Amino acid sequence: MALKTLSAKAAAALDKELMSSGAFSIDQLMELAGLSVSQVVYRVHPLHKGKRVLVAVGPGNNGGDGLVAARHLRHYGYHPTVYYPKRPKNDLYQRLTKQLEDLEVPFVDDFPTALKSADHVIDAIFGFSFSGEVREPFPAVIQAMAETKVPVTAIDAPSSWDIEAGPPASGVGSNFHPAVLVSLTAPKPLVRHFRGHHFIGGRFVAPAIAKKYDFDVPPYEGLDQVVEVGPEGLRL
Amino acid sequence: MALKTLSAKAAAALDKELMSSGAFSIDQLMELAGLSVSQVVYRVHPLHKGKRVLVAVGPGNNGGDGLVAARHLRHYGYHPTVYYPKRPKNDLYQRLTKQLEDLEVPFVDDFPTALKSADHVIDAIFGFSFSGEVREPFPAVIQAMAETKVPVTAIDAPSSWDIEAGPPASGVGSNFHPAVLVSLTAPKPLVRHFRGHHFIGGRFVAPAIAKKYDFDVPPYEGLDQVVEVGPEGLRL
Repeated sequence: MALKTLSAKAAAALDKELMSSGAFSIDQLMELAGLSVSQVVYRVHPLHKGKRVLVAVGPGNNGGDGLVAARHLRHYGYHPTVYYPKRPKNDLYQRLTKQLEDLEVPFVDDFPTALKSADHVIDAIFGFSFSGEVREPFPAVIQAMAETKVPVTAIDAPSSWDIEAGPPASGVGSNFHPAVLVSLTAPKPLVRHFRGHHFIGGRFVAPAIAKKYDFDVPPYEGLDQVVEVGPEGLRL
Repeated sequence: MALKTLSAKAAAALDKELMSSGAFSIDQLMELAGLSVSQVVYRVHPLHKGKRVLVAVGPGNNGGDGLVAARHLRHYGYHPTVYYPKRPKNDLYQRLTKQLEDLEVPFVDDFPTALKSADHVIDAIFGFSFSGEVREPFPAVIQAMAETKVPVTAIDAPSSWDIEAGPPASGVGSNFHPAVLVSLTAPKPLVRHFRGHHFIGGRFVAPAIAKKYDFDVPPYEGLDQVVEVGPEGLRL
């Protein structure tokens, strides 16, 4: 069965619908999205492989998912560290930050140095609403993630990739191929260019909504909030 | 190790602190609390034992936890049915109700009839803020839960039990002994009178907060949002 994808425009409309007629709050959706990401990291990088998870957090909702994932990972026994250089004055992001501070999760300013002592990286910089150019200070961060041998898990999109077209032809991100991708609710078209481990997360979409947006609720098992859909990312 | 308990007053103060200096929103806490309850039901009553879960929902936050649990159970493949006779005009509860309607979860008015075709029951009527008398229409519901052979999972407290003293000496609830109890964040003193399967859920408390309120974060394992703490409920 071919896996249907959700364009950037459709993903934005779905998010809007979930939070209007779907009656979800952003707190709720972000909690479940971040929980999904934490479960993927637990699977692909179990505790015995090293507890130090570096989370690169961007200024929007993708970053918020990363903050939630870091909190859950802390509760699982990991030692997350957060790089969060651009912090909007948004109440939700400030609260998610405070929750991490209360767990004594360190926030760092120097990404390349932090990367040297990381066992795993979460790319929570940009998500499905990204387009155009990568702004400062993120080009160097994405470059570092592209060059490191530390495995990277990207949320919804490898940061800098075009949501439809995939990796840029040149410049920042053109050589960025994370080991793991977590697509939230449904894969975006860029997944066709992704060759790592591909998971779908976000077990909160009603079948009627999925049908309306023409994607399939993936075959989650048991209590799992995530499901792996094959390394090539195109087939269930 | 003896399990420390949290008085009704301390539990209310903890909730308040989590939502003020702890920076959690009620949406977030209720999502994680309800997720914990759903994981307990999945463990004690796996799908092959019967999918029909009847959820008795009260007018407050305990009821909200029940609504969230019903949603997650639906995603796991159960067929929840919700009895929700007193619905406050509270935005959050209305949204949680809508989320269930979108999943085509039926709401029923007649609890005893619904109980006849249930495989498991969740008691989400009253929680740690309960005291005094059980008001209509809940006495007959609690009586039905006390008399049925269908296993019942209670959230935080068997409804009608005094949070400190346990089951009432006579009248409604005096013979109500649910099979399963999920204590959220920490057990309440009534747990000393409970003899079923006891779980703790709500994996979101920072160690510093637990220390301040003089309880222990229980030894959660792996990705679990819940942990069983022994049938007698007093020892880890």
